[in-house]
Amino acid sequence: MSKGKKVVCILSGGIDSTTLLYSLVNAGYKFPQYDVYALTFDYGQRHKREINCAIETCEKLGVKHKVVDITNINTLLQGSALTDESVDVPEGHYEDESMKSTFVPNRNMILLSLAIGYAVSIKAKEVYYGAHAGDVAIYPDCSPKFIDKMNNVARVANYEPIKIRAPYMLMGKGFIIKEGIRLKVDFNQTWTCYNPKGDKACGKCGSCSERLESFGKNNITDPIEYDFSRENE
Amino acid sequence: MSKGKKVVCILSGGIDSTTLLYSLVNAGYKFPQYDVYALTFDYGQRHKREINCAIETCEKLGVKHKVVDITNINTLLQGSALTDESVDVPEGHYEDESMKSTFVPNRNMILLSLAIGYAVSIKAKEVYYGAHAGDVAIYPDCSPKFIDKMNNVARVANYEPIKIRAPYMLMGKGFIIKEGIRLKVDFNQTWTCYNPKGDKACGKCGSCSERLESFGKNNITDPIEYDFSRENE
Repeated sequence: MSKGKKVVCILSGGIDSTTLLYSLVNAGYKFPQYDVYALTFDYGQRHKREINCAIETCEKLGVKHKVVDITNINTLLQGSALTDESVDVPEGHYEDESMKSTFVPNRNMILLSLAIGYAVSIKAKEVYYGAHAGDVAIYPDCSPKFIDKMNNVARVANYEPIKIRAPYMLMGKGFIIKEGIRLKVDFNQTWTCYNPKGDKACGKCGSCSERLESFGKNNITDPIEYDFSRENE
Repeated sequence: MSKGKKVVCILSGGIDSTTLLYSLVNAGYKFPQYDVYALTFDYGQRHKREINCAIETCEKLGVKHKVVDITNINTLLQGSALTDESVDVPEGHYEDESMKSTFVPNRNMILLSLAIGYAVSIKAKEVYYGAHAGDVAIYPDCSPKFIDKMNNVARVANYEPIKIRAPYMLMGKGFIIKEGIRLKVDFNQTWTCYNPKGDKACGKCGSCSERLESFGKNNITDPIEYDFSRENE
């Protein structure tokens, strides 16, 4: 039986990349269209729980999965609220200026570079990642311009060109959740909250606010638990 | 006293990047032109000795220096003779087709991405690296085309643009050694050989062959020791 085209999918364990993974796994009529190699990075994010979600999703879908510990690079990348415990995770809307403190220096160029290296190693020709339109307000390395320019360099950096694909590049999270509903994504196995303490999501950080807003747009209830009373520490 | 413009310099411990570091440290008339942050990667290269050379050079020049262990990423990047002990280091001329086995998948995009992230963190605006014309025959990620395209993406990936500079991009190793002589580079503190066993360089790998040829062009003797009788293992 055909296994489909070999591709790498960067999987954070959040809604966007998890939905993307489901769509790759489900693509194809009689035979799978893609032979998917999922790749998760432990870059010292304080919200480790998303890594466990990524692991559970790949087990459930039977997808080959690597988790790579690159926490060492944090000696280079300082000052982000996502990796540095001395910086508070901001509350508020995900497009607020304050959300810029959650930007990890050059994160997506680093993660895509590693994913491209992995693709070259396993002779895959494409790397998928879940950048979406909602990220663009705050994160320059999720913009269509960035993705285009990364594609230009990925075409010439190795003996064979690698293509970066970000199919949600122009879509909002509301659309992605709609797509996730269609694909029967288990949203309980996705994690979005940037605020890492406790078992429940905070409901207040920019990332939670975008998630809640997007479930609302689809008139469904987010299955994960929130503790709105918890103080941001 | 002015410290000069803050810049990151990727330092492998080979001749090219060491000469580049000397030129940055020595630039300026009354005051230093650059405030240099050297950056060395342990990516699991079998020729570890170059890392020690990088450390010694920075100590000698009094340059701030970070060595970052990114060997974990080798679970992603397989099949290069430089990192994989099951692959033989090829002998012969450095422009031979066989040298392609020393290509590490996507190496320079990965290392530059990390260096750019470091530059963003410390608020430097430029990243220097020692790619040179001799590398271009074998390594696509040393070509002017690659460097141009990396610059295009480095301009948009973060809140502030970062510039990648590769001043030896169009020069051969002979020229770089000439420049090194002028700058009084201690070539004994540089390492080039890809063949990691023993205390001496092999004199046979592509990297040694280029080094020896380039010292020859300058009519000077390479100060490091070679063991030409040693078998390639």
